[in-house]
This record gives sequence, C-alpha cells and structure tokens, in this order.
Amino acid sequence: MLINDPATLASLETAFDKYEVALTINDVPALDTLFWDSPHTLRYGATENLQGYEAIREFRAKRPGSALQRTIIDRSVTTFGTEFGVANITFHRNGETRTGRQSQTWARVDGVWKVVAAHVSWMDEPKP
Amino acid sequence: MLINDPATLASLETAFDKYEVALTINDVPALDTLFWDSPHTLRYGATENLQGYEAIREFRAKRPGSALQRTIIDRSVTTFGTEFGVANITFHRNGETRTGRQSQTWARVDGVWKVVAAHVSWMDEPKP
Repeated sequence: MLINDPATLASLETAFDKYEVALTINDVPALDTLFWDSPHTLRYGATENLQGYEAIREFRAKRPGSALQRTIIDRSVTTFGTEFGVANITFHRNGETRTGRQSQTWARVDGVWKVVAAHVSWMDEPKP
Repeated sequence: MLINDPATLASLETAFDKYEVALTINDVPALDTLFWDSPHTLRYGATENLQGYEAIREFRAKRPGSALQRTIIDRSVTTFGTEFGVANITFHRNGETRTGRQSQTWARVDGVWKVVAAHVSWMDEPKP
C-alpha cells in the first residue's frame, strides 16, 4: 500500500490546516463543509458523542464560539493510497491542565477531503 | 466512493470482533498482530499518548491484564473502498461511571486488516 505519497500527504495537510483555522475562529460553515455529509459520520467530543452529519452540524451551530483556541504540541498526518488518511494532534488549551487529543479520519469523497470520523478528548492523569 | 461494500464490511467486522475478544482476555500477541507494524501507527489511550508500533507494543506488554472487560453500548463500523474503514464504539466498564469511547482507523495492509490509528477516552460530564 502506498503510504505518504507526497502529493496526497500535501493535499491532506492543507485540508487539515483549513480545519484548524476554521475551528479556532469558529467558522461554522467551513467546518460543516469539511465534514462528510452522511449519517455514517461520527464525532466523539470531550463531552458528547454524536452520530451523523446532522447531529454534528446542530452541535456546532449551538456551541459557544469562544475559547476554542489551542496550541498544537504534536502533529502526525499519514495517508494510505491516494484517498484516505489520518490526522492526529495533541494540544494545550488555556484554562485546562490536561492534554487534549484530536484524531480525525479523512477520505477524499468526490475528489474533496472530508472528515469521516473524529474523536476529541482530554487525557486522564495516570493513576499513581 | 464505495461505502460499506458488504464483503468489505463483513471482513472488517470480523477483524474488529477479533480485536475485542483479544482485548478483553488481554491476548497481547493477538493485539500486537492486529496493529500495523509502523512508526506511523498511533494510539491515544485514556492515560497515555503513544506514537509508533514499538511504543504501543511496550505499553501492552506492561499493562495489567485485569479489568479490561467492558460492555459495548453503541457500535458503528463503516468501510470506504475495499481497503479502509473506521470502527467506533461507546462502552461501559465496571467501576467507571463515565462513558468510554474507542475509535479505530483500519487499513488492509498486504491483504490483512490492521489498526493504523486508535483513540480511547472517557467522556467528561457536560459542564452544568
């Protein structure tokens, strides 16, 4: 299997960058466009589990648009073939001591990169 | 794009079931086999962030094998084309009041389904 084909990786990195900018300025239409419009699309957030594009869209429309800024610590983007990839980051957010993690699975649907599944969480402190 | 081709979906469901059994009985060799052997493989766990197959393997080898049983609440498996898919579950574990979530991205590498990225977390209670 073709892993990290340079052109594929570059195009997914660009899509990921668009998402990150849209998230931090709470550009809801851009975020909606970047998710796959399907009942199969799924997003586990820090405080909610959402199944289906419509549920995710509704959640975004209602979410307060402040305090979404974050600092990425680690970033790992990997592509498989020319139409699939994963993007994973760890991050810090002001006012939160725990480390954040965001995992996205992307597919190129009709030529356009879309998030088909996402998972965002805060890491528990390891038990002593 | 081909979504949930029946034969592809059935074969990924089978791979996912194998993983779930191996996890709950802590069959470390089986779990190792089900992960992609690559430095790009990534696993965010409830209390740790691991990059690379070797880091994940080491973590498993040291982890206590008890209390890994869980009850799946919701399960969503979706395939894209014939070599890529996502498997997402929410679950309960005895002794933990929070809802667990597990997201896996799978790719068929040399004909065999492998987890290429995973994220496991406990959901925060929504803030009042």
